Amino acid sequence: MYKCNEDRMKDKINTFSRFGATGNGGITRYSLSEEALQARAEFEKRMEKTGAIIEIDDVGNIYATLEGTDKNAKRIVMGSHADSVKNGGNYDGILGVISAMEVLETIAEQKIPHKHPITAMIWTNEEGSLYPPAMMCSGIVCNDYLPEDIKHNFEYDKMMNSVSIEDRTTTFGEALEKSGYKGNKSYRLSRENALCMFETHIEQGPILEEAGNEIGVVDCVLGMFNQRIKFYGQTVHAGTFPMNKRKDAFFAAAQAILYLHEEIDKLGIKDLVYTTGEVVCHPCVHTCVPDYFDFSFEARHEDAKELEKVLAVVKSCADKEWAGCRCETVPAWNRDTVYWDKKLVGYVEESAKELGVKYQYIHSGAGHDAQFVSYMIPTTMIFVQSKNGLSHCEEEYSDPKHCTDGATVMLNSVLKADVSE
Amino acid sequence: MYKCNEDRMKDKINTFSRFGATGNGGITRYSLSEEALQARAEFEKRMEKTGAIIEIDDVGNIYATLEGTDKNAKRIVMGSHADSVKNGGNYDGILGVISAMEVLETIAEQKIPHKHPITAMIWTNEEGSLYPPAMMCSGIVCNDYLPEDIKHNFEYDKMMNSVSIEDRTTTFGEALEKSGYKGNKSYRLSRENALCMFETHIEQGPILEEAGNEIGVVDCVLGMFNQRIKFYGQTVHAGTFPMNKRKDAFFAAAQAILYLHEEIDKLGIKDLVYTTGEVVCHPCVHTCVPDYFDFSFEARHEDAKELEKVLAVVKSCADKEWAGCRCETVPAWNRDTVYWDKKLVGYVEESAKELGVKYQYIHSGAGHDAQFVSYMIPTTMIFVQSKNGLSHCEEEYSDPKHCTDGATVMLNSVLKADVSE
Repeated sequence: MYKCNEDRMKDKINTFSRFGATGNGGITRYSLSEEALQARAEFEKRMEKTGAIIEIDDVGNIYATLEGTDKNAKRIVMGSHADSVKNGGNYDGILGVISAMEVLETIAEQKIPHKHPITAMIWTNEEGSLYPPAMMCSGIVCNDYLPEDIKHNFEYDKMMNSVSIEDRTTTFGEALEKSGYKGNKSYRLSRENALCMFETHIEQGPILEEAGNEIGVVDCVLGMFNQRIKFYGQTVHAGTFPMNKRKDAFFAAAQAILYLHEEIDKLGIKDLVYTTGEVVCHPCVHTCVPDYFDFSFEARHEDAKELEKVLAVVKSCADKEWAGCRCETVPAWNRDTVYWDKKLVGYVEESAKELGVKYQYIHSGAGHDAQFVSYMIPTTMIFVQSKNGLSHCEEEYSDPKHCTDGATVMLNSVLKADVSE
Repeated sequence: MYKCNEDRMKDKINTFSRFGATGNGGITRYSLSEEALQARAEFEKRMEKTGAIIEIDDVGNIYATLEGTDKNAKRIVMGSHADSVKNGGNYDGILGVISAMEVLETIAEQKIPHKHPITAMIWTNEEGSLYPPAMMCSGIVCNDYLPEDIKHNFEYDKMMNSVSIEDRTTTFGEALEKSGYKGNKSYRLSRENALCMFETHIEQGPILEEAGNEIGVVDCVLGMFNQRIKFYGQTVHAGTFPMNKRKDAFFAAAQAILYLHEEIDKLGIKDLVYTTGEVVCHPCVHTCVPDYFDFSFEARHEDAKELEKVLAVVKSCADKEWAGCRCETVPAWNRDTVYWDKKLVGYVEESAKELGVKYQYIHSGAGHDAQFVSYMIPTTMIFVQSKNGLSHCEEEYSDPKHCTDGATVMLNSVLKADVSE
């Protein structure tokens, strides 16, 4: 079987780790930031060396394509994202881009025959760290095929012009124009030009490592819901206003956090995860009682019925008054569990077996661009073991051998897809 | 008795309310911001009209002085601040500046004879909203006289160059240079050039209104302590990391907030106020479990022994683990209860009585520039009734008649001080 090159993988991992390096082992590389543009330039430079043609669509997604023997055949696509969360690691997203690059480099170097054009790509703004929502540009590109309940989050104009994070000085649309990466809509990934997509990604959890497996054959992305829980109080001066008349929105939120943990844990739902990761406090000065506090709430599980029980607890927060404050729960977005294409999942499993690596079937708890693409064309994912299950942090790490094996599994899966049709 | 002019007061209140107007009835006017510079220019323009001489010291404090009959006499000073908190109101600080202006305008208009030079002033950066700490520039000017335990917060070089708020792009020193308000150190308020200081301020609490009094004769500023309570967890991906292995710093902080309220309320300390107004969450994105969370904690009371009991509860947080997270409590700064000069307090009471307004003795729960000045020269304050006790918010309001009466009380107190020495 054809194999990828570990030294070349290491070189790419090290090189990309420099773009946005925090100095503490991780990166902050917001989409379309200067650091992200460095990563894009590196991607283009290396892909052009393989002989690939570079195309950029109207939301900055980059496609590097090696022609196959059949000029009219649809593309087989591999890709992930090059942006990160704040103080994130060197593997989330970028490993999928590096693996796709490695597949093209291996094909070019070893002159591996293939009928279909094969494309390595970067999806713009997957994390949504600076420009929400997450998976913005795969959402926009696949919009026609998205289920109605998530579609409204990916309206093109809304995405381009919205400014919703306080310390941001520009919109996504403005940043895209400025970046020089606003390309042509006709280059978008579509049912007409693409046969299927593969995305390699780190697991971002501890399951593979604990089981002693290096590769995960992913079968689905877990369903989830997102809500925003908001508390409205009254700002008063910290030194002058009696305690018993206060309406402290931060105290209200703290009470609600404990209530949520208590009530949700009572449900006893196996494998449920839920997170309150983002907060807003106003006016957020030590001499003022906060008049507003909100936090994000998200929960993930394969079974929609279990998620409904959790949602009922979240919504019940709004029925109560917390420390004198009114509470409101606002739905952000949801997704049902998305199952991958069975044929492609089979190719991944066969390839892992042929390579002789230890692997297992696994769900994805995290959302990925592949999930939106799967509504449009057959799609699947390959997971690589994460050290200590850590991700979205600077300690994020995957063994270079495992990373290379992941790329080899993807290469051989792509070649199986190439001869299937 | 001499009286101030309500129409002129109203005009000043309305004019200054425009500098930094949020559009929702309040202002955001950070020290040395463009809006603050507009307020400073207005102050200078109006004070020059009275014939006052403008002087600016090396930290941007502005002094507008009307000469008296004795060129060698020390100044009688009135002042407060022109900066605000984020989304603050139109009275906190600026009313004291406007009242001081009104006193000079009344003296000039009515040609009121006086022996001592009389000075209206603006203290730079009282709120410390953008450049902590609060009361920075009175702290720097009065530094030699501050008690040792608070002195270290007001080191000149540290203040000038520190950058500790994340979304700030400049230091206080840089902003001061750029503003054009870096004057001469020799102009600083001092024991050598000043006899005493008066500061008029809104009450910022509900006590005067509830008692039906319009003026407060302030006798002290309550003692207080400030701490920062910090929680250290582990960032992991929200979708992939099992609940039972998480170390969620926000969940930890929420538990501690409830613990603090429960334990402190158990102490049953009458008239105690404590506040957790400022939070920091990292990385603060909805797809990550927070690895760091901290919040400010401050408590205020006249009796230092009661505050010690509260501090013991705060410190006990660090003895426990919260949701798997380590906790640390870091002292920020403290102050003992500061009592005003008894002679000056007497002048204020006599003036209120002569004017025939309803008044009462009152403590100040909030800190003010006057507090630091009082370590250096005799000082006191005059409070004006606040509507609904609201302050540090856009709803902040005081009746123009009460404001004018406050200015009249200050004018007559100044004149009493003028003839006393």
